[in-house]
Amino acid sequence: MAAWDDAGITADPGRVHTEGRMVRATLEEARDQIAALFGVRSRQVVLTSGGTEAINAGVWGATRADPGPVACSSVEHSAVRDASGRSGPVVAIAVDRQGRIEVEAVQAAIDQCQALHGRLPALVHCQWANHEVGTVQPVAEVVEHCSRLGLAVHVDAVAAAGHVALDIEGLGADLVSVSAHKLGGPAGAGALIVRRGLRLEALLVGGDQERARRAGLENVVAAIGFGAAAAELTAPGAMAGEQAAARSHTDRLRHIAEKVAGVSVLGDPIDRLPHILCLDVEGVEAEPVLLGLDQSGIAVHSGSACSSETLEPSPVLAAMGVDAERSLRLSVGWSTTDADIDAFAAAFPRVVDELRALRL
Amino acid sequence: MAAWDDAGITADPGRVHTEGRMVRATLEEARDQIAALFGVRSRQVVLTSGGTEAINAGVWGATRADPGPVACSSVEHSAVRDASGRSGPVVAIAVDRQGRIEVEAVQAAIDQCQALHGRLPALVHCQWANHEVGTVQPVAEVVEHCSRLGLAVHVDAVAAAGHVALDIEGLGADLVSVSAHKLGGPAGAGALIVRRGLRLEALLVGGDQERARRAGLENVVAAIGFGAAAAELTAPGAMAGEQAAARSHTDRLRHIAEKVAGVSVLGDPIDRLPHILCLDVEGVEAEPVLLGLDQSGIAVHSGSACSSETLEPSPVLAAMGVDAERSLRLSVGWSTTDADIDAFAAAFPRVVDELRALRL
Repeated sequence: MAAWDDAGITADPGRVHTEGRMVRATLEEARDQIAALFGVRSRQVVLTSGGTEAINAGVWGATRADPGPVACSSVEHSAVRDASGRSGPVVAIAVDRQGRIEVEAVQAAIDQCQALHGRLPALVHCQWANHEVGTVQPVAEVVEHCSRLGLAVHVDAVAAAGHVALDIEGLGADLVSVSAHKLGGPAGAGALIVRRGLRLEALLVGGDQERARRAGLENVVAAIGFGAAAAELTAPGAMAGEQAAARSHTDRLRHIAEKVAGVSVLGDPIDRLPHILCLDVEGVEAEPVLLGLDQSGIAVHSGSACSSETLEPSPVLAAMGVDAERSLRLSVGWSTTDADIDAFAAAFPRVVDELRALRL
Repeated sequence: MAAWDDAGITADPGRVHTEGRMVRATLEEARDQIAALFGVRSRQVVLTSGGTEAINAGVWGATRADPGPVACSSVEHSAVRDASGRSGPVVAIAVDRQGRIEVEAVQAAIDQCQALHGRLPALVHCQWANHEVGTVQPVAEVVEHCSRLGLAVHVDAVAAAGHVALDIEGLGADLVSVSAHKLGGPAGAGALIVRRGLRLEALLVGGDQERARRAGLENVVAAIGFGAAAAELTAPGAMAGEQAAARSHTDRLRHIAEKVAGVSVLGDPIDRLPHILCLDVEGVEAEPVLLGLDQSGIAVHSGSACSSETLEPSPVLAAMGVDAERSLRLSVGWSTTDADIDAFAAAFPRVVDELRALRL
């Protein structure tokens, strides 16, 4: 990306002049790299400005021809829930205490949709894995179940993409949303992956870019970064290696955290994304823990991904029936070292102790 | 941008940890630079992934509460026309042979809207200047006229921004769309500028970014590039200097072109954007001229901005009543040199002559 910015190539890839064709070739190479990571054809990849746009475009495209109620669990990302509200009423899919969506709960929501609204849902959502607690969903079973019923399914794979292997073609979902910055790529890049043969009405209109599925001049430098990150992860053994390292790091984090009294792990402790660990810290707010860790150079997050500017309780935790308003989310990545985990081990018990002492 | 990419700072500006606050400060500095170029407050600037998203979001936000017919000339960009079609029927504002939108024509469209649809338009569009032929519109008069009638106005300033001074606060339009890549910034960045006090329903939902007017992780590196280009243009004398250089270059291009028999300038030859010149070349298609010039290292464009992948006739030319399906658009920029114009002078007459000889 830096090399591209330095070169200052800015031609429109939709043009037939030499500069345009050069940029087009670079863009399509990036698309091929992204498609390879997810096991789909390049033409299935609609490049977007990020996961949020992919989700909004997916819901719009899937429901525009026949808007209606949408089945959506409360552990879905706010973008999934909010975008669904435009199609019709959102029928909740219940989750268990680990935030898991079971096929039976999906069927119950479909039944409820029939009872309340006299029709099948226009769309069913099932995230690949939860963005806040990391619980991996039985997404293949849900997609298979919905496909048998002829229902369209959107899979928010933003949290999972690049961290667990996603055979999107094998999954058979109609629409899958992914984001670059969650897997080592840049902010400002994402993709909506569209099932072969599915026609999609564009959310952004006014140009024929992305095979008329997303208008607007393509952000080629963002695509280059997304493609490069995807190519790294597609190399033999790369993702397995990152998974093992992330799992080892979050297992250590879990061990460190659980040694502190009143600290517990939220979500499925085993069948979770390798790089996320979500903690409930009894007796203290998540926010001051975050600030205390920040003073030790450790950046963690409280609450869900896109709602950080609001201080509302986490709907994910509420749906799980957990008695906490906000959790502490620890994430590791390809750049995390053992020393980073050591730093957490030194800081976390002290920060929690100090905050608890203040409350006495 | 290259320095930012090299530094690899990727924190979410919505977070309260140190890294997030650093990124937030950088993002807001870029927003301040963009706001300064357009004479508005920073909080009026909603950053988007480009001009097309800004236009789509503007039309959505302006018409969502009360969808209905939209008054829109046929010389507007396809994004403006296509996005308007979602609100209701598009009532055409007539233009003259130079592609100019007169206030009387706007009023005629408003009257027609009343006659056909029994109501005032939900939104009126008036581009700042035409993207294809460069004609500058009487946008201040149109906005004033519509404001008196209580009508919402969206101004597509994508072609004009950075090339002529835009006092957006003084203009008083409800919504103005701009794009970074048209003024020396990167692809993948744009802004919707919102009148003070106007509440805007977001097109992209699911997060509170951009004061809940545009959800999704901010593309900070794109904003940095947009801000840097805006800051360059805000420096005293900078835009006037670029204007003079561009005007001198396009005046030379016009002189060169008009010496070739059967070549004429489309749009207003005087009151046009300084950096655009649009040609009608009698007796030959625009496409082979483009390819011939490309072989001489000159990149020009035929047809309108976002429809290049389709080979449909230009709706701009059709609306102007010009007897040509596609035009040849020449653009100069801050990097254009006199030698570039010399190269055009050497190539253009030869390319046209050769193509005409082929037709004999």
